[in-house]
Amino acid sequence: MDDIMTEAALKAALTKITGLDVEAMEAARNRQAKLAKPPGSLGRLEELSIQLAGITGKVTSCPMKKRLIVLCADNGVVDEGVSSAPRSVTLAQAINMTKGLTGVGVLCAHYGAELQVVDMGIMAEYDCPEILDRRIAFGTGNIAKEAAMTREMAVKAVMTGIELAGSAFREGAGVLGVGEMGIGNTTTSAAVLSALTGLPSEKLVGRGGGIDDTAFIRKKEIVTDAVARLKPDKDDPLDVLAKVSGFDIAAMTGVFLGAAINRLPVVIDGYISAVAALCAFRLCPAAKDFMIPSHESCEAGYAAAMKELSMRPILMLDMRLGEGSGCPLVFSILDAACAIIKNMASFECAGIDDGYLEDIRKEERYTGGRKS
Amino acid sequence: MDDIMTEAALKAALTKITGLDVEAMEAARNRQAKLAKPPGSLGRLEELSIQLAGITGKVTSCPMKKRLIVLCADNGVVDEGVSSAPRSVTLAQAINMTKGLTGVGVLCAHYGAELQVVDMGIMAEYDCPEILDRRIAFGTGNIAKEAAMTREMAVKAVMTGIELAGSAFREGAGVLGVGEMGIGNTTTSAAVLSALTGLPSEKLVGRGGGIDDTAFIRKKEIVTDAVARLKPDKDDPLDVLAKVSGFDIAAMTGVFLGAAINRLPVVIDGYISAVAALCAFRLCPAAKDFMIPSHESCEAGYAAAMKELSMRPILMLDMRLGEGSGCPLVFSILDAACAIIKNMASFECAGIDDGYLEDIRKEERYTGGRKS
Repeated sequence: MDDIMTEAALKAALTKITGLDVEAMEAARNRQAKLAKPPGSLGRLEELSIQLAGITGKVTSCPMKKRLIVLCADNGVVDEGVSSAPRSVTLAQAINMTKGLTGVGVLCAHYGAELQVVDMGIMAEYDCPEILDRRIAFGTGNIAKEAAMTREMAVKAVMTGIELAGSAFREGAGVLGVGEMGIGNTTTSAAVLSALTGLPSEKLVGRGGGIDDTAFIRKKEIVTDAVARLKPDKDDPLDVLAKVSGFDIAAMTGVFLGAAINRLPVVIDGYISAVAALCAFRLCPAAKDFMIPSHESCEAGYAAAMKELSMRPILMLDMRLGEGSGCPLVFSILDAACAIIKNMASFECAGIDDGYLEDIRKEERYTGGRKS
Repeated sequence: MDDIMTEAALKAALTKITGLDVEAMEAARNRQAKLAKPPGSLGRLEELSIQLAGITGKVTSCPMKKRLIVLCADNGVVDEGVSSAPRSVTLAQAINMTKGLTGVGVLCAHYGAELQVVDMGIMAEYDCPEILDRRIAFGTGNIAKEAAMTREMAVKAVMTGIELAGSAFREGAGVLGVGEMGIGNTTTSAAVLSALTGLPSEKLVGRGGGIDDTAFIRKKEIVTDAVARLKPDKDDPLDVLAKVSGFDIAAMTGVFLGAAINRLPVVIDGYISAVAALCAFRLCPAAKDFMIPSHESCEAGYAAAMKELSMRPILMLDMRLGEGSGCPLVFSILDAACAIIKNMASFECAGIDDGYLEDIRKEERYTGGRKS
């Protein structure tokens, strides 16, 4: 597969991303206007239904099969003591995810979402066939000393993400979520975001899983130094991904792009996911139309990434777990948005007019999807 | 039943509201601390699970049977042209709700919540046995000219709400939501909130379902005048409810109180629901511990009501439909919070330690509720 994972192939893939279906959106907008409620009163549930129409080309489309893709990788920069957890937790939690043991595993089970765990570059040998092996290498280079990876590796990771989205589409997924497991990846995310936006590390570096003051100061220094030393080109997202990201972030970028290529809605999780979404947006602005935000991450930098994307989160839950944990919650809200546009009565059917009151009492009309 | 719906009976009922179960909360907190995630990283999902433990006395409690109680009533002030919709819409939508036709009907069906529609004072004769008849009167007085209702009526409406929560408890509900349908009730809500907080109508009056500038100005004048003329006593919530609220708001207040009496968690919807929650809080501060916010209403005044309650919304969906439409979405999030505390693995079980990795690969431990 390596021979097709070239930069030329990536560029060709990006040309397949086209805009939203304007006609379907207009039809969805018209339908929303006829539903028995004050215009716009269901707010973003209406907007989501219109966006979904633009993505899928269908005015009503539910229920959707949900797949959360969790990209797992280790980061060389963990050698610098920037994380509260040891590197081994990446593998431990990747395995635990396949058993439904982690936070996101529980949430996926609860919301009926499929959880796909992918090894993009875990720094350990192990035997767990439930983890999909797409390893680029055993962890990245330590950005405190060297580039995280070569440009070729970055391209391969992005292309792998695109391919994962394609597989999901072929296997019937109707909506994707993008999560991660990679000790050290709030550090790499901050470096990517600093490179792409020019913002200083102070605004982008948080305490991740929970580090002490010394490690926090060191983490900020490392991000500042890495960007200054490696000089990632902000106008070349692949250069940024190669120099200061990780295999997780690069592959996540690919999943966002692959979702757009396959016209699938794709849900952003928290900080790291938002940074990858921004990389995808910078590689192909039209990819943004297929993205849906989820929760407001507590991690510093999330707000900056969302501002670059001109997006607002939906959920205020003070979460900062990662793993894609915000996605299942929003899968459910997307289904709700679909249910509204599909099952709500129009003004006409609902009899919002004195003359209709008599009729509606006599007739059993539409039951709005309720099992009666 | 009227003989037991006295102010003395209400006062006696309020003495049954006691604080949260501190021991159960401590046990829930301890359990959360042992789950395999950075401490606090699931944010409000953790806090909700701890609050639910304090309410129910059980550390894990899911799934809960959900009931949304929608209080419907007409408001005399609609004669003043403060609403975008005619009064008849109250009845039309109440009937439509029983058929699952409205926004909240679709959301309840989608999230598996029972929808109870209660007539607290619809200004029309009709025949719809699916609507529970608890009518106090055929609509309230027009607050532009007179008090909305007598103090006795306010007490009766509050007691009716308490009784509705009690019935829900006896019928197996594990969580309640409080919604409304009553054309004109953003006007009465603003009057109640202005009376309780002393804030001017400019900060509390919005455009409700969508009124023009003339009606908007008139609406603000009416709220200001009603509060100035009727002089509701801010330290006497029953006086405020009687003079400037509606049968819907008074009964909603009762449902919040009744939830606390029966130790049921209860979800606040938008503006009107938040104002009723504030009335319940003012009548009995301990009732607040049983309340859970849902979405941030776009209606002016919602933020002021939430500030008085020291609460933050969970969902940012720009909704302003009312009907209780925010509640089903949060019912689902409560279930997710329950699933987390019930099904997530502890650090020990998850093998977050190099030594455990080998074990966890050999054993199939807990599957986190996933069908495998």
